[in-house]
Amino acid sequence: MTPTEIAAFVGGTLRRDGSAQIGFVTAVHAANETHAAWFSGKPDLTGRKPSDAQWQALADSGAGVLLLHESVTGNLPPNAALIDCANPGLAAAKLAQRFVGVVPPSQPGVHPSAIVDASAQIGQDVSIGPGCVVEAGAHLDDGVVLQSRVSVGANAKLGKGSYLYSGVVVYHDVELGAACVVHSNSVLGADGFGYSWSGSRHEKVPQTGGLVIADGVEIGACSAIDRGTFEPTQIGMGCIIDNHVQIGHNCQIGAFVVLCGQVAIAGSTVIGDGAILGGRSGSGGHCRIGAGVQMAGLSVAFSDIPDGAIVAGAPAVDAKLDMRGRAILRKMARKRGRA
Amino acid sequence: MTPTEIAAFVGGTLRRDGSAQIGFVTAVHAANETHAAWFSGKPDLTGRKPSDAQWQALADSGAGVLLLHESVTGNLPPNAALIDCANPGLAAAKLAQRFVGVVPPSQPGVHPSAIVDASAQIGQDVSIGPGCVVEAGAHLDDGVVLQSRVSVGANAKLGKGSYLYSGVVVYHDVELGAACVVHSNSVLGADGFGYSWSGSRHEKVPQTGGLVIADGVEIGACSAIDRGTFEPTQIGMGCIIDNHVQIGHNCQIGAFVVLCGQVAIAGSTVIGDGAILGGRSGSGGHCRIGAGVQMAGLSVAFSDIPDGAIVAGAPAVDAKLDMRGRAILRKMARKRGRA
Amino acid sequence: MTPTEIAAFVGGTLRRDGSAQIGFVTAVHAANETHAAWFSGKPDLTGRKPSDAQWQALADSGAGVLLLHESVTGNLPPNAALIDCANPGLAAAKLAQRFVGVVPPSQPGVHPSAIVDASAQIGQDVSIGPGCVVEAGAHLDDGVVLQSRVSVGANAKLGKGSYLYSGVVVYHDVELGAACVVHSNSVLGADGFGYSWSGSRHEKVPQTGGLVIADGVEIGACSAIDRGTFEPTQIGMGCIIDNHVQIGHNCQIGAFVVLCGQVAIAGSTVIGDGAILGGRSGSGGHCRIGAGVQMAGLSVAFSDIPDGAIVAGAPAVDAKLDMRGRAILRKMARKRGRA
Repeated sequence: MTPTEIAAFVGGTLRRDGSAQIGFVTAVHAANETHAAWFSGKPDLTGRKPSDAQWQALADSGAGVLLLHESVTGNLPPNAALIDCANPGLAAAKLAQRFVGVVPPSQPGVHPSAIVDASAQIGQDVSIGPGCVVEAGAHLDDGVVLQSRVSVGANAKLGKGSYLYSGVVVYHDVELGAACVVHSNSVLGADGFGYSWSGSRHEKVPQTGGLVIADGVEIGACSAIDRGTFEPTQIGMGCIIDNHVQIGHNCQIGAFVVLCGQVAIAGSTVIGDGAILGGRSGSGGHCRIGAGVQMAGLSVAFSDIPDGAIVAGAPAVDAKLDMRGRAILRKMARKRGRA
Repeated sequence: MTPTEIAAFVGGTLRRDGSAQIGFVTAVHAANETHAAWFSGKPDLTGRKPSDAQWQALADSGAGVLLLHESVTGNLPPNAALIDCANPGLAAAKLAQRFVGVVPPSQPGVHPSAIVDASAQIGQDVSIGPGCVVEAGAHLDDGVVLQSRVSVGANAKLGKGSYLYSGVVVYHDVELGAACVVHSNSVLGADGFGYSWSGSRHEKVPQTGGLVIADGVEIGACSAIDRGTFEPTQIGMGCIIDNHVQIGHNCQIGAFVVLCGQVAIAGSTVIGDGAILGGRSGSGGHCRIGAGVQMAGLSVAFSDIPDGAIVAGAPAVDAKLDMRGRAILRKMARKRGRA
Repeated sequence: MTPTEIAAFVGGTLRRDGSAQIGFVTAVHAANETHAAWFSGKPDLTGRKPSDAQWQALADSGAGVLLLHESVTGNLPPNAALIDCANPGLAAAKLAQRFVGVVPPSQPGVHPSAIVDASAQIGQDVSIGPGCVVEAGAHLDDGVVLQSRVSVGANAKLGKGSYLYSGVVVYHDVELGAACVVHSNSVLGADGFGYSWSGSRHEKVPQTGGLVIADGVEIGACSAIDRGTFEPTQIGMGCIIDNHVQIGHNCQIGAFVVLCGQVAIAGSTVIGDGAILGGRSGSGGHCRIGAGVQMAGLSVAFSDIPDGAIVAGAPAVDAKLDMRGRAILRKMARKRGRA
């Protein structure tokens, strides 16, 4: 793509044209004339501003095209085409998607080693790779891809264009929406952890509620989302879920929720739209985490959290309060150390 | 089942008969006349009493049969049959088991795509699903079910009626008792984390001790229980183990122990019968957690915990002491915030 | 092996000869005359000295050979041959390796049920077990073993003699060094957790950077190491990585690093050689954990940690400071409790 084509594609403004032909996106310091690279000049997610070394790497970049925020000026490489974008990182993401897609290429068809029950319904252009197993009554909509060694349980439904990497297990009756991506060895719809002590043993409460995952959800590797007891566990549209995430039975997760690595959501938790849960945070169960809540890494909700709150600690409380408590304790410890 | 039949089955007392024919169990608010539902009126596991909304849902329930504690009276739906039970939740669990069992149905036989070594011993009515692998010398007792893509290592033993969901891996020499259930992608008997630093590299200590799991144990998805170094890791009868649980080498877990999601038990920990470990709690290893101990979520034992103790925090201490410490710190932080 | 042969093999000194023929290594209390056992007399990893019971077990041991530190004298079993070793645990590890190796035996060849793409390059004496899938362009060097149901993605490279247990998934383009061991259901090279919020959805940042793992790395069960965004995630030589470990995209882990169970390293973390991260510790991302750092279990780095530091807590600080803070809080809580 030429700089002009890229500017049009990302909705940016060509600050300075160039002759480069761009074939991919990479980091500023690694780019050559066939690459686009991006630089926003803004603090990163952890609040850190770009370092001097990062500004220098920008100045020295060999990129053919630089996607920049308009505020990024000064010492820029003389030969790069420059495109101003409201959100350079987003522009780079869309451009990279344009070049390589979001999943590996696949070919329609059922591999001869796959075991597909005769009663399963298989849509157009579905790709079922080696060693996959599709049980009775399962329904794979058009364009679904099962990479290799994926198991799809009886009567499960997989929506249009969803991509399941090797080793994923989808239990019976689970419904996965369209355009979802599930990474390897994750498990969708295993039994929730429900028992009743009889006086002599833990009697299992059969988990018959199922699991319904909406469209556009991406799930990382080795994560597990349990089916509900009587009614389905639900995951809303466009959620992004990292590796080793555990979601208990009967949870209702809203749309576009972010669950980082090792998050654990105990049973019957409700999470509002757009909440962001940092690494290894979670819920103790039976509470509501409001829409737009931001939970710091390691924090755990043991009671309801209002919409939009920013919380930290376990039990999770106002993040500033938590931070103040830690600071007080550290100060006392330092003082004692000097005494 | 009629109300009378259900009362007999659960050992309850028919408080009020009805004409319903019951085919399944569900939640009070979702039930219709073909459903049984239950309500205990007691606080839930987190200590919360039923809310006004839950009492209202009971009053409005369309259930054909309600399983109630005898103390639940007042505003009850006029058409439901009522059965008094000492433990309505337990009665509902047993009734649900009666209708749907605790695992999906399966058919005996070896799927043609399964690879079963000629030297493996396969009992009566065993079901080995598509893509399973059973190595040399393995022994599957009567009624064992391997759902799909399960690997059973050399000389492993699986007890009568145990059910292994898709993707489970059982290492060589592991012994699993009767009537166990193992959910997808869990790993039984991988090497413990044992090394000795040579001065230039970590020399592996071969892990030859095996793993012995007793009868009636249920294990969730994506959990890993390691084999012992010289002697077997042991899991006692009737334990219930949730998702993403990690149990290190040489651990000895007693009977009916409860390990909630993301619990991690480091090597050589001993846990007494009936202990309950909350979500993401665990042990730092080489200590004893007594019988009947209750560990709060997130707490971690770094030294022995006496039988029956209720502990919290990391290191785990008396739960009240831990709570008091947190309260003091929060109070100081609030005070400072106002200053 | 005779005592003399063992002394030569482990580089120890025969303190007292004996007539035993040794066939394996086991624990002091479980050993008979065909076993070697070891005892260092030193505190274990948690700082605990051997107990009286352990000294008694040594005195009562039926082992044919005892591997001892020269400082271990006094009440020793009269019939055992005694070998002095600078590091008896290390000697025992090497001796056990000599008897049983570090992985189970395997036979070269491709199982008929394995699916190996015609364009894959397969070295000498490679063993590809039942149900394995090897995609186009993959390269398996001499002596690689895929146990059963392993998936190797397109163009992935597996180094000489590496052993992958059942259920492992290696994504496309991943490079694994020589003599690595990967336990069941671990996932190498899944997409990093990279998105950019568009104002209406999380746009995925394609993860094209790959993953490069050096020689001699061992990885436990159910762990996940993500591929980089633009440049590879890197794992250094001889690292040992336990179960349920999560390593985010763009991390650079040095040589011989120890990552215990449930460690989570968020994206773009750099870890120096020889660092040791205790159970469930980790990094919040975008920071550097120095060479030789020791992080206590549960501690999490949110900023750089200098080489050689010993840290604890979250955020991780000097371990003594953290301990002092905890002690102060517990003391206040005890005082309040008595008041």
